[in-house]
This record gives sequence, structure tokens and C-alpha cells, in this order.
Amino acid sequence: MKDDPRYQPLDAAKSPRFADIATFFRLPRMDISGDIDIALVGVPFDLGVNFRAGARHGPAAVREASRVIRRMHPSTGTAPFSLCNVADIGDTPMNALDMMGSLQLIQDFFERIHAVGAVPLSVGGDHTIPLPILRVVAKREPVGIVQFDSHADTLDTLLGSRINHATTFRRACEEGLVDPRRTIQIGLRGSRFGPEDVAFGEQVGMRLITMDDYEAMGRDAVIGEIDRVTGSGPTYISFDIDGLDAAYAMGTGVPEVGGFNMRDAQMMIRCLRGKRLVGGDICEVAPMYDPTGQTQLNAANLLFEMLCVVAESKAGSH
Amino acid sequence: MKDDPRYQPLDAAKSPRFADIATFFRLPRMDISGDIDIALVGVPFDLGVNFRAGARHGPAAVREASRVIRRMHPSTGTAPFSLCNVADIGDTPMNALDMMGSLQLIQDFFERIHAVGAVPLSVGGDHTIPLPILRVVAKREPVGIVQFDSHADTLDTLLGSRINHATTFRRACEEGLVDPRRTIQIGLRGSRFGPEDVAFGEQVGMRLITMDDYEAMGRDAVIGEIDRVTGSGPTYISFDIDGLDAAYAMGTGVPEVGGFNMRDAQMMIRCLRGKRLVGGDICEVAPMYDPTGQTQLNAANLLFEMLCVVAESKAGSH
Amino acid sequence: MKDDPRYQPLDAAKSPRFADIATFFRLPRMDISGDIDIALVGVPFDLGVNFRAGARHGPAAVREASRVIRRMHPSTGTAPFSLCNVADIGDTPMNALDMMGSLQLIQDFFERIHAVGAVPLSVGGDHTIPLPILRVVAKREPVGIVQFDSHADTLDTLLGSRINHATTFRRACEEGLVDPRRTIQIGLRGSRFGPEDVAFGEQVGMRLITMDDYEAMGRDAVIGEIDRVTGSGPTYISFDIDGLDAAYAMGTGVPEVGGFNMRDAQMMIRCLRGKRLVGGDICEVAPMYDPTGQTQLNAANLLFEMLCVVAESKAGSH
Amino acid sequence: MKDDPRYQPLDAAKSPRFADIATFFRLPRMDISGDIDIALVGVPFDLGVNFRAGARHGPAAVREASRVIRRMHPSTGTAPFSLCNVADIGDTPMNALDMMGSLQLIQDFFERIHAVGAVPLSVGGDHTIPLPILRVVAKREPVGIVQFDSHADTLDTLLGSRINHATTFRRACEEGLVDPRRTIQIGLRGSRFGPEDVAFGEQVGMRLITMDDYEAMGRDAVIGEIDRVTGSGPTYISFDIDGLDAAYAMGTGVPEVGGFNMRDAQMMIRCLRGKRLVGGDICEVAPMYDPTGQTQLNAANLLFEMLCVVAESKAGSH
Amino acid sequence: MKDDPRYQPLDAAKSPRFADIATFFRLPRMDISGDIDIALVGVPFDLGVNFRAGARHGPAAVREASRVIRRMHPSTGTAPFSLCNVADIGDTPMNALDMMGSLQLIQDFFERIHAVGAVPLSVGGDHTIPLPILRVVAKREPVGIVQFDSHADTLDTLLGSRINHATTFRRACEEGLVDPRRTIQIGLRGSRFGPEDVAFGEQVGMRLITMDDYEAMGRDAVIGEIDRVTGSGPTYISFDIDGLDAAYAMGTGVPEVGGFNMRDAQMMIRCLRGKRLVGGDICEVAPMYDPTGQTQLNAANLLFEMLCVVAESKAGSH
Amino acid sequence: MKDDPRYQPLDAAKSPRFADIATFFRLPRMDISGDIDIALVGVPFDLGVNFRAGARHGPAAVREASRVIRRMHPSTGTAPFSLCNVADIGDTPMNALDMMGSLQLIQDFFERIHAVGAVPLSVGGDHTIPLPILRVVAKREPVGIVQFDSHADTLDTLLGSRINHATTFRRACEEGLVDPRRTIQIGLRGSRFGPEDVAFGEQVGMRLITMDDYEAMGRDAVIGEIDRVTGSGPTYISFDIDGLDAAYAMGTGVPEVGGFNMRDAQMMIRCLRGKRLVGGDICEVAPMYDPTGQTQLNAANLLFEMLCVVAESKAGSH
Repeated sequence: MKDDPRYQPLDAAKSPRFADIATFFRLPRMDISGDIDIALVGVPFDLGVNFRAGARHGPAAVREASRVIRRMHPSTGTAPFSLCNVADIGDTPMNALDMMGSLQLIQDFFERIHAVGAVPLSVGGDHTIPLPILRVVAKREPVGIVQFDSHADTLDTLLGSRINHATTFRRACEEGLVDPRRTIQIGLRGSRFGPEDVAFGEQVGMRLITMDDYEAMGRDAVIGEIDRVTGSGPTYISFDIDGLDAAYAMGTGVPEVGGFNMRDAQMMIRCLRGKRLVGGDICEVAPMYDPTGQTQLNAANLLFEMLCVVAESKAGSH
Repeated sequence: MKDDPRYQPLDAAKSPRFADIATFFRLPRMDISGDIDIALVGVPFDLGVNFRAGARHGPAAVREASRVIRRMHPSTGTAPFSLCNVADIGDTPMNALDMMGSLQLIQDFFERIHAVGAVPLSVGGDHTIPLPILRVVAKREPVGIVQFDSHADTLDTLLGSRINHATTFRRACEEGLVDPRRTIQIGLRGSRFGPEDVAFGEQVGMRLITMDDYEAMGRDAVIGEIDRVTGSGPTYISFDIDGLDAAYAMGTGVPEVGGFNMRDAQMMIRCLRGKRLVGGDICEVAPMYDPTGQTQLNAANLLFEMLCVVAESKAGSH
Repeated sequence: MKDDPRYQPLDAAKSPRFADIATFFRLPRMDISGDIDIALVGVPFDLGVNFRAGARHGPAAVREASRVIRRMHPSTGTAPFSLCNVADIGDTPMNALDMMGSLQLIQDFFERIHAVGAVPLSVGGDHTIPLPILRVVAKREPVGIVQFDSHADTLDTLLGSRINHATTFRRACEEGLVDPRRTIQIGLRGSRFGPEDVAFGEQVGMRLITMDDYEAMGRDAVIGEIDRVTGSGPTYISFDIDGLDAAYAMGTGVPEVGGFNMRDAQMMIRCLRGKRLVGGDICEVAPMYDPTGQTQLNAANLLFEMLCVVAESKAGSH
Repeated sequence: MKDDPRYQPLDAAKSPRFADIATFFRLPRMDISGDIDIALVGVPFDLGVNFRAGARHGPAAVREASRVIRRMHPSTGTAPFSLCNVADIGDTPMNALDMMGSLQLIQDFFERIHAVGAVPLSVGGDHTIPLPILRVVAKREPVGIVQFDSHADTLDTLLGSRINHATTFRRACEEGLVDPRRTIQIGLRGSRFGPEDVAFGEQVGMRLITMDDYEAMGRDAVIGEIDRVTGSGPTYISFDIDGLDAAYAMGTGVPEVGGFNMRDAQMMIRCLRGKRLVGGDICEVAPMYDPTGQTQLNAANLLFEMLCVVAESKAGSH
Repeated sequence: MKDDPRYQPLDAAKSPRFADIATFFRLPRMDISGDIDIALVGVPFDLGVNFRAGARHGPAAVREASRVIRRMHPSTGTAPFSLCNVADIGDTPMNALDMMGSLQLIQDFFERIHAVGAVPLSVGGDHTIPLPILRVVAKREPVGIVQFDSHADTLDTLLGSRINHATTFRRACEEGLVDPRRTIQIGLRGSRFGPEDVAFGEQVGMRLITMDDYEAMGRDAVIGEIDRVTGSGPTYISFDIDGLDAAYAMGTGVPEVGGFNMRDAQMMIRCLRGKRLVGGDICEVAPMYDPTGQTQLNAANLLFEMLCVVAESKAGSH
Repeated sequence: MKDDPRYQPLDAAKSPRFADIATFFRLPRMDISGDIDIALVGVPFDLGVNFRAGARHGPAAVREASRVIRRMHPSTGTAPFSLCNVADIGDTPMNALDMMGSLQLIQDFFERIHAVGAVPLSVGGDHTIPLPILRVVAKREPVGIVQFDSHADTLDTLLGSRINHATTFRRACEEGLVDPRRTIQIGLRGSRFGPEDVAFGEQVGMRLITMDDYEAMGRDAVIGEIDRVTGSGPTYISFDIDGLDAAYAMGTGVPEVGGFNMRDAQMMIRCLRGKRLVGGDICEVAPMYDPTGQTQLNAANLLFEMLCVVAESKAGSH
């Protein structure tokens, strides 16, 4: 138990949860430093989309929604702020008029996180951002990926572009950042332009679990499969919020109906206890399409689930 | 494979999905003609309701929401725009100040569709509209109905009126348009004024599956029952969007809680592959009650599910 | 069958459901009197919360949403307005600038209901209000509680205060109003400040069913457990709307993800047929956070479910 | 000063303005009787429109919005509830499936108001409703009209129909209910289908003040003109909420930009002090298009302005 | 009077304004051709912004909102569809992943409009789009500009980029497309990063009218100044919707308070009758920030005002 | 020119305005210290209201909305961040369950600001909060008040309570914190419970400018009157957002129609240049009633106007 007083959320008994500035979980906003075990970071980049933009406002929205989260996990009892020094290190720089330049800015920022040994948990931004993150997190060895998503994001090109939110994991494979045999994609569904994306994943050995598979197997078997595929190697979690059923995630660029629900998502992340986790992200939250606030609230809760398993992983490795 | 270039959606690689006018699935807006196999048609009639109006704006809303749909079904691989010539033939005429006149205008419009042999898929409008449609589609022989709905719509009269969104399927039975023994109603629930509507359906031999039944049987058994009841005769699909649980369909005149979800709906429509399908409709989408856009998105996805099974049916009959 | 014409909802055949003033279920607005069997009452108090206020507007919102409810239960056939004299007796007085004074005003109002022997069904208001209600309803003997909630509401103090929406059921136990061994809490989940609240419930013998338990047991077993715990003694139903999954209840002060759905809630209340029911409440509906109206609609439907079982209980006791 | 205690709004010091059922200004909901001087009445009819329906929900929305109104006019000091017995007499009957029948039901209801000598102030409903009202109010002698509106509503027919929200004042003229020379229309603007409607008004001698006129004259001169035109005869006020600039009235069927503002509207109604007022209405509030609630709030405030001048008129005539 | 039946809006007497697909003013959707006098075109480009994106959805939103517009101008009597052949020619191509490529696609599209001699009226898209348009429209001789805007859009660079929505009119000057002495900017206001943008305009001889100037001069004097500055040369109208006061235009990327209102905007455009108009645009409508629909409605009305003056200009030049 | 680099907003050229945490104007979040000249502070207290709560979320909402504000005033050229050290010092503590205790916590917090000589600019919170602030700011000598408001807030008691948002300025007078002869209230209007509040102000010598007065005098004369009344003594600005016309401020507890607009408000604050300003506040922003965000945006802009005049005042006094 570290329980470092410098790295605690604002005390709701003194400052109510509606009060003061919004940081992730009301943690201190700090610049990255060697004291930080887990760095919560916003990546407000949404220049990689071909339909509805808006995920640039995702980090701000999830910070606001995370006011409601408390200190202790209700099922596992994990108290992440006691286990690790967790801080909100702000957002990466971003140039809204320079797509490729922005990706470099993001990568440079993650280099600084990596340099001090902190584990990054990111809030996007669109689903292009795992690429610059993985270029840092996975530069020594390829990582396994647990990807929650309705779309495989393994096209070769989109609109003639090789880098965007539909090609991320193909590029990451090609660059040797991702070990496809330790990669599992969960929740695939939604009408498609063609067969190409899924075909790539199957070809390189990813484990693809469509919603049809998910339903046929049942959640427990899927959880078993996540465990089997990821094994004991370094593992990265990537959650595209459109992996959730649209009833839980209208506040995103391309909502897809007929997916898994929040309870499912929580249980699948929760099962990652004991894994060697090197980072994670939640992407594609677009708050202007979320008048009820539900999508933002879901993202904040999923971030807390991720934080709990990452904190245990990180604390265990101290 | 027809793959007629004149009947393809706008290419998202050239015109992004947010661009240009909204037609159903970004297909060409054409007047009805003999080249068309499947006619997508709006029926902006909502004078048959006794609570919240607004479904007159349903076709416009579903057109907008359908921008997001792509070309290929993710589970079956069906590519409807390759199998059949599909077009958006616009909306039926309608006179907002003349209820009975409007129903005649609708019927006349469907006569023109029928005359060229196209299969109509309609977006309402309130749930009165199957009556003028069936008067055309079923004029030679009664059809079986797969009705997704929270309400049976088999009252004798409502407010002294014999034609409205609560009497549709009783009138259609009485007029010999519907074969009650080949008719199945799925999802019945919601507080009721009295026992009359359901009693009629039971009396004439319809298969009624309440939500209690649905849950007791399980979805697979319900799918089996749909198959058994409809058999090999001509079958029409009618989807009142309030058949969905209210969490999926607040954007409607009378949302009802405790229903089936979108995955259920998709799977039940999907199971109609191989049936002899003569038409279908999605009714009661009222977009002014749908600030998240979820109901409209669900309707667009259900229309695509219907289109896939109808395209296979129609292509098989060429 | 009483079927007293003075205690019937407005007839939708004469006054459409969108017409005239909104009372609960369009029943007459009457002052409390000895003719009334079941008193529907609003308790617009929300001074007991530490995050988002707004439940003071809950009664008005649920009245509006209840326009859509009809006369007869679809599964059980119960027609509550035929069984009992049910009326909307308006809202309790409340002083928005005096928290403790308001609780006394509420208690006084319920004394008047109690004095004439009517069973109260209340719409809050925040989840502090069961305390003044139980001080009346349970003053002769402790009652069992069926509590639907994501939070146990059994803290000792919150912000130094002993009376608020997080301490209600602890105070009620300490005051001897509640029999903890006949009390069951269903749906507990959500990140926590610490272990204290749940520990209290376990210590005094309440039956706590977390969402993990709920899922492990299945709904039927939970229903059996509700039956077993409550037994044949006097029983009070308290439904904090945040017991529902956030997808069904964003319109509340502290929505919590990963809970049970409306179908679950309906079935659990429905199973209370035959119990000796002394009252019930639905709390924490905050309509300004409910742009789709879904939370309000759910509350109205749950109130109808409660009314049906309470009406049978009350009618049986005549 | 009557100050009859039976005809007072709920006392906000005892029942806060957010509490209890919503009636107009929190007045008692009473059936019409001879004790009532001014009858506030809802007319939930919207079958006369050719674009967006929804004004059937106008009375409910204005009742809710009117909770905020207090007792005394800030400029004139008028206290209408002290001068007259004012009550909310509910809504007229209406049959959503029978347009012409509904108009008769409305007329019959106003006959009952007229029979006891009460002055009716109505909340629509679409702008067809002045016709059945005037058939009662003006049956003995034609009345002058002060019409606030962006559209003249003096077409001969719309969609082949002679009775609807675009022909109201032409029919009323033809039926001898309206004295065109004592009629003034204020705020006319908005793109038009053709010249016909305005031409009729000019031909029969109505005073038409377009927004161009309004701006050229200035508000004070317009107020002078209202006074001159209406003179000392019986006068009826009809306020189509789309007379307001769209920035003040998006919650209506056909909002029109570039109109007068709320201050203007308040001042123009206020200037009717001393007139012989026989009734008034506010129409076309469609709350589902009003997410901010501003249109409903404006309607409630305009109703209070009307009430103040009508109460003085009525009290003066006792 | 041309009154070509091929170029008329749908007849509302046959197809109600809520029916069928949404094109600008319900005109036919046609590809560009020599028969077209005025081409209404969408430019769904929003890659030039540094704050809130979303104007890519502007054309779709304005098409929907334009359903409400009729045929004839209420003040001038202009009937543009009788004077000229007006058509909706759809949207320019656009590549959401290629900013500079998209600008070329836009320019190429306008070349095709220009080649047939049609006058383009565009709906953006962000305020970068006048640049590729002017490169076509003004390639023979520089044009005067009437710019309604809260921001001058004459920075040299933004975020290191020379082409974006804040540099448009500086680039256009430098490229010789705009005659600064025949250019007037109206409505400038809003907090600023620094003095540079306005300084450029003043230096090159543009007429800058800040809101302080506007108020000091009065609208009539401003209208006189527009007339004086633009003179008799070719003139282009560019309306950034944020030129309107934020109360009229929240649905935009950067709303600015304290501006002119819709009546002002209408009158200033209306005063351009008799000018030699070579095109116009309305930019920066971002519908996801416009829950009331007011901004979209304003844009549709302003487009109609522009259309009326352009139609007179074009008809006069036949 | 101080231009202290530690007290500058985030540079939008490096961190876009949508990025990173939301503080007032993207300034650093610092604890109060002697280096700070002007302290921006949130006061999330809304326990003093008798209708709609929600202003507790005002500070968070205004922080988010203030992202859009830049560095330099467009009319005066004032660059407040160059003149003074300005910082966001967070929110005061607040106990949502203890009204009187919270007011003490607020007062204590302002004592700390006062102790270091910083000028406080506050964002409420309801309009009770000027009382604890003035108890600090005005403890040495009474201050003049420029109050923008639709309500006078000078009742003696409300609901039996002496401290709440309707009695603030009466208490402040009685406590000798306010010099009534140097106090001016602007914008008074809205229906009233009775004559008492205004009578108090008149009796003690406040200058009351109702909307009737405002319109009769014209804005320039009102500005002159503000200058005359406040003179050269210490002056405090208090802006209840409901002072704005409801078209500009629906996002508040009690919106009032028929008020002044944002341009008016800006100009009246702007005229306070040269005054001896000791603090200011903007109260009653309730973001859950503000779906367009306009009210929040207006508040952020008004805060910037206040900051500019206060910065000049403070800089001049160095």
C-alpha cells in the first residue's frame, strides 16, 4: 500500500463531487514525472475519421463524467489510488490542422510517459491513436491486444490513406508492434463495405469474436478465450466505445446496434486481473452526440475498471 | 449477380457518408419503374394515432440515419445492392388534412409499385399504413404476417373510428388480406385498456407471443415458431418500432418498456431467409422524441436486415 | 369489485391521454379521505443529496409520464382501479430552505394518510424520504423492506449529517422501523467510498444481493429469495430508480452502470402478489437529466406495477 | 376586490412552485360554473396543420411552464387573482381521429363557458381553434381581433380543405364572427406560397402590419394603431406563438425568423388595458420542438399578460 | 419569367413539406448542366477549423431545414423559381482524410459549375471554402466581398498552416481574387488572440464594421456603406453563420455573443438587390450543436434571401 | 505590463482550446497566494433557492464554456492576462447537506483571498453567495453594488428563512456591507409575489431600474446612471444571469422574459472602466437547463468583460 497523499482524488467530504475543476477521477493534474505509476492522459485527436468527428472533445467529457466515480471497486475491493500513484497528466499536444504532425506530437508525448516508467491509460480521440501509443509502448517487444470494438480496424487503406481510424491495427501488426496471435477482437458486427478487414485479421492469426460468436459462446467462454489468447505476455487494452451496443453508446462517431452491454464490458475488463498490462485506451467518445451523458458515463466507468486491473498489475510489479 | 451500376449507393470513397442528399442507404432517388426489384418508399402518414403524432417525419429521419449503413451484411454476407435493383422511390402523396383521402393516395401509390412487380419496403408513418399496403400486396391471396409490436392492433374501433393504428390487423383480417393462421405477433405487452384486442387475434387463430411467452420460450424457440407459422406462403413483415424495448425506441408515439432488444430483433428478421417475402414496413418512428437518434438508427438497421432477406427472396425468384 | 366511478382515470375515449391536467394515471386529484384505499402522493424533497439535485421535480415528471398508462395489467389482468379506490392526493408540503423541517412536514402528511387507513404509494424526491414515511407506516411494528437500489444507503453519516439519502435504511433500522432480517437489497453495485455501508447491512442481517450475486443466481432465484426473506409480515417496497442500469435511468442524481433492466424490475415487483404490502415508493427521478423521457416513463411503469400488487393486497384485506 | 379564497393559486410558501399538479398558474382545477369570471382552458387540437403537428401537447406544456408565474404584474401592479375568480377548467374534449367532430366538441365546450358568462382564455392547439371559439364568443355580434402572427391565416383553402389553421380568419369573416375593420394582424412575414391570403385581408379592410411595417412605424405607433383599430367594441386576442421571432419560439409547428421579441409582445398585450375583451388564445406551442423550454415559458408569460388585461376588463364590467 | 416546370420545388399541395427527400427548398436534385442558372451546392468540408468540427454536416442540415421555405419573398415579392432555373446539384466530393486534396476536389467541382455559366450558392462546410470557390468565381477579375462574420478571417497563419478557416480572405487577397477596396466585413467582435487579423484588412483597404461600429452607425447607414463599397462590380456574398448573435447561432463551431440579429441579416442581404452577384455561401453551420434547430432554420432563411437577390441579378443579366 | 509567464492561459497554438482540463479561461489552477492579483473562484452553492436547483454545477459549466475565450478584448484592447496575475483558484468548500455551514465555509475561503489582497471574481452558485463574499470584501467599508438582475433579492424572508437567494441584498444592507445610495439594480421585471422587495430598495435609497425604466431611458442613459450612482467609492458587481432576457438565459433557476440582451450586458459592464472595483460575481447558471450551452457561453463572456475592467482597476492600483 502506497497511499501517497499527493496522489489522491479530492476528498468528497470536503469538496463535493460537483465542485472544482474536472480531472480524471478528481485526481491531481500533474505533469509527468518519475513518481507517477499510472498516467491518465487525454488524446484529443479526431482527424482520422471518415464520418462524424467530435472525439477531440472526448477527454474533456470523460473527465467531467468521472466526477461520479469513487475510490473502491465494488466487486474486487481494489482501491487503485491506494495501490499506485495515479495522476491526470493532461492532454497530449495536437494540431487540428496537421494530421500527421499531430500523430508525431502524440507519440512524442507518450515517449515522455514511457521514459519514466509510467503505464499510460488514455482517453481518445478517435481509434487512430493506439498507433502512436503502441509505437512507444510496444517498441521493445510486440504486445497482445484486447480490442473491444464493432469494427476490426484492419483495412489496408481508407480514402487512399494508410493511417486513420480504420487501419490502426493492420499498421500496428505490419510495424511489428502487435503480436496478432496474442490479439483478440471482441464484438465485431455492423454492416460492412466488404470482407477485407476481417480477412486480414484471420490471415495473421488474430482471434476474432463477432457478436454471433459472442452470443454462441457466452460471456464466460469469451472471458476464457481472452485469457488463453493473451497469456502471460505484455498486453494492451483498446476499447472503442462503439464496441458497446448503440443503446449504451450513441455518443460516438459510428454507433453500431446489436452489441454487448456495459455489464459485459465491465466483466471482460475485470477478468484481466493478473495480466501483465502495459497500457490501455478508451476511444471514440463524441459528447455532442450524447445528450443524456450515458456514453461519457460508460467511458468513465470503463476507465475505472481498466485502472483497477492496471493498478493491480503495476503494484504487483513494484 | 445483377450488380447494376445504376442501382448502387453513393460510393463512400468518393462522396463521404455525411455528404449529399439523404436517401435510403444513399441509393438513387428514382421514380418507380419496371427495372426496380425492391422499392424503398416512405409513407409519411400519422393521422391514425390517438396519442403522440410525429411519425409523418419518420421517412426523413430514417433516410438520414441510413447514411451510416454500408453494403454487406456482417453475418450472412448478403450484399443486397448486388442481388437486386434497389431504389428509393420517394414518399407516397399524403394530405395532412384528409385522413381517409390519404389512405387512398397511399393505396394508389402502392398499386403503381405492384404493377411493375417490385417488392415494397416501407418506412412509416404510423401503424395504420399496413392496411392500404396490404390492400395492394395481398389482393390476390391473403398473406401471412410477421408482426413485431407491443400492441396487437386488433381493436374493433378506437374513438369510434374503424380505421386507425389500433385496428389495422383486424380490418386486414376482415378484408381477407391476412391469413390469421399464418400470422404471428411478437412482443405483446404494455398496460391495456381491456382484453378485446388480444381476444380477437386468439379467436381468429393468430399466434400471439407476449413478452412473457417470449422470455419463457427463448429467442430460438420463437424463431422456430415464426418459421412454423409462416410456412411457405407469401409473407409480409410489419415492424412497429415500439415492439423494441423502450430503451431502444423512445422516439415513437407510445414507447413500451420491458420488450426485446435490437439483437433479438435483428436475429428474428434474419431468420426469414428463404421465406417468400412480399413486402415489409417499419412504422411509428417519431424523430422529435429521439434526441439521441437511437430510434432512427435502429430503424435504419432493421430496414437493412429486412432488405437483405427480401433481396435474397426476390433474387431467388428471378 | 368496487369500481367506484369517482375513482377512475379520465376516459381516454373522451379525453385523449395528452389532454387535461396530469395526475398520476389521470386519476382524480383529491384530498386524503377515508374513502381512499390507495393514496398516490408526491414527495418533492431533494435536500438529502450530495451530488446532483433535481428529484424535487420527480413527482411532476412522473405524473406527466403516467398519461400513457392504461387500466389493466397485461400479464396478470389486474385492474387496480376496479379493485380499490385510488386517488392522486397531491404532494406533501416541503420547504426548500429547511431540510429538517421538510422531513417533519412530510411525516405529518403521511400521518394523515395513515389515519384514514390508506396505503401510500409515493414518488420522490430523493431516497431520504422513506425515513419519514416509515416513521408513520412502521410505527406499530417494524416492516420488511424490498429495496431496489445500486447503493445500500446504510452509511452512518454523510458529510457529518445523520439524515440524508445515503443513511436512510441505517437510521430506519436503528429506530426500529425496519426488520433487517425481513429486508432485502437488490442491485448493489457502483464504485464505493469504502466498505462501511454494506458492512452494516450484513451485520444486522439484511439480505444483500449485489449485481454479481444477481447474475450468479439468476432472476428466478432472486425472486424466490425476495419471497423467502419478506415472508408474510408487513412489507414496504422502496425503489431507487438508480437500481436500474444507467441505460434505463440516466435521469437521476447518481446513475450507475451495469444493473438490472426494466423487464427484471417489472418481474421482481410482480412477484410481490400476495404479500402484505403497507406502502411503496419510487425515488430519485430527476427529469432535467432525462431528455429522452425514458427514466420518467420507467418510473411511471414501475409505479403501475407496484399499484397492481398493492391493490390486490389491499383488496384482499378488505 | 373579490379575493375569493377558493380561486387562489397554491401558496408558494406552503407548496413550492415545483410541487403538486400543474394547472394554469397553479390555480384550482374546477369544472365550469357560474362563479368563475375567467376560465382558463386547454384546447388540445392539432389536426388542422399541414406541416409539424404537436400543439395537442401545448396545454400540458404551458401548464407546467406557468408554475413559475407569481401573483402580481410587475409594471401595472394588477393582481388578477384578486380581481376575478379565475380557474383552470381543464381541456376541451377532442377526438384525435375526427377533425370535424373535434371542432364541434370544442364549440360545445365553449358554449358551456359562454352560458355562465365567463371569459375564456385558451391555450391551443393549432390556430384552427379560434374558429369554434369565435362561433360561440362572437355569435351575438362580430368582434374585433388583435392577431399576433407571422401568417395571415386567411387562405381560402389549404389542401382542398376549407377549415384548418391557414383559413381560420377568412372563415370567421365569412361567417360574420369577425369585424374586419376592427381587426389588426401584427407581425406578418415569412416566405409565402402566393399573394392570396394577405390580399383577402386587405380587401375586407383588415389592418395588416407586416414586420416591415412594424419596424418602420416603431412599437409605440403600432400600439396606437391597435388602439385605433379595435376601438371600444368587443375584442378578442389571438396569439399564434409563431408571431414571435423564431429565437423566442422554436417550439412551434412553423417557426418564422425576423419577428418581434417577447418585450414587444408583452407591451402590445399590456396596451389592451381598458379594452372590452371577450376572450383570447395562445396557439401553436409544440413542446417536443422546445428542448430549452423557452417557447413554453414565453406562452405562460403571455397568458399572464392577457389574464391581467382581461381581469381588469372583466372586473370593470361587474 | 421562365417558370420552367422542370425546376420547381415539390408542390406542397401534393407532397407535404415533411415528405420525400430533403433537397434545398425541395428543388430537384440534378447534376450540373447548361440549363441551370443558379446551382445550390453543399460543400461538406470542415478540416480547416481549430476548435469544434461539425460543419461537414451543414449541407444535410440546411437541406432538412429548408423544407419550410415557400416560393415567394414576403417583402419584395420575388419568386426566384419563376425567374431562374434553380437546382440542387448535390455536394462537392470531399476526402475527410486529406485536407489539401479536398480543397482541390472542391475547386474542380466549382470549375464545372462555372463552365456552364451557373451562379453558385453554397452551403458549407467551414469558412475555408470561399477560397477554392473564389479561385473559380474570381479567376478572371477580382471580386468584391460582402462578408458577414464575427471574425475577420485574415490571419496570416493558424497553427503554422496557411490555409484554414481563419486565413481565407487574406489568402484570397494575396491571390488577387478579392478586391479589398470593394470588400466589407460586418459584425466583427469577440475576444481575440491579437491585433493581426484586423490590421491586415485595414492595411489593404477593406471596410471593417465592428459591432461597435454597427451600433454607432445604425443598420441603415451600414446598408448604405455596403452599397457604396461594393459598387457596380462583381460581388460575392459570404455569410459565416457566427456573424449572427449567438442567441441565433449556437449551432456553429465558435459562437460569438453580442452580434446582429436575423432581421438585421435579412435586411442587409435584401439590400443587395440590383448588385452584380457572382455567388454566395453560408458557412459554419454545425447541427450537432443546434438541438433546437434554430441555427439551421436561420441558415435556410438566409439562403433564401440570397437566392432572391441572386435570381434577380441573374435574371436581369439574361 | 506584468505579463508573468506563470499566469498565462494555455497557448492555443500548442494545446488546442478543446484540449486538457477546463479551468477559467484555461488559466493555471493554483491555490491562493500573494502573487495572485485576481482570483477566479467557483462557489458551487445552490441551497438558497426555492424553485429549480442546479447552480451548484455552474462553476464547472462556465469553466468548460470559457475555453473559447481568447486573450484580448475586441473593443478596448485590454489584455487582462498581461496586466495582472490571474489564476483559477478552484472552488470554495461546500457541504450540500448544511446550508448555513456552507455559507461559513464560503466566507472563510474568501477571507483567505482577501488576506493576500487579491480581487475575487466568482462564479456561483445561487444568488445567496454575494452575502458571504460581501462579509469579507466589504468588512472595512460598505461597497456600492452594480446588480444586474430581474429580481431585486431584497425580501425580508422567504419560506421563513432570512438567508437565501431572495434576501441577499437586504441582509447585506442591514449588515452595513452595502451602501444603498451607491447601489443600482438593473433589469427588474417578472411577475411578483408582492410589492415588498422593491419597496425596501426604494426606501433605503437604492437606484432601481426596471425594464420599463431601462427602455424609457435607453442604454446610454442607464450607463450614465450607473456611473453617477457608483461614483468613486469601492464597487462590487453582481450579475444574476436571469438579468438577461430568457432568450439568452434559459439555463437558470428562474428565467424571466423581456429583459436586456447580451450586447446590453457587455456594454454596461464595459462602462465600469475606471471604477474602483473590489470584486464581482456571476450567479445562477444552471447548466442542466441549458442544452444549447448558450447560457454558459454568455456567463463566460460576461466573466471576461468583468475581468477586463477589474484587471484595469487592479493594475491601476498597483
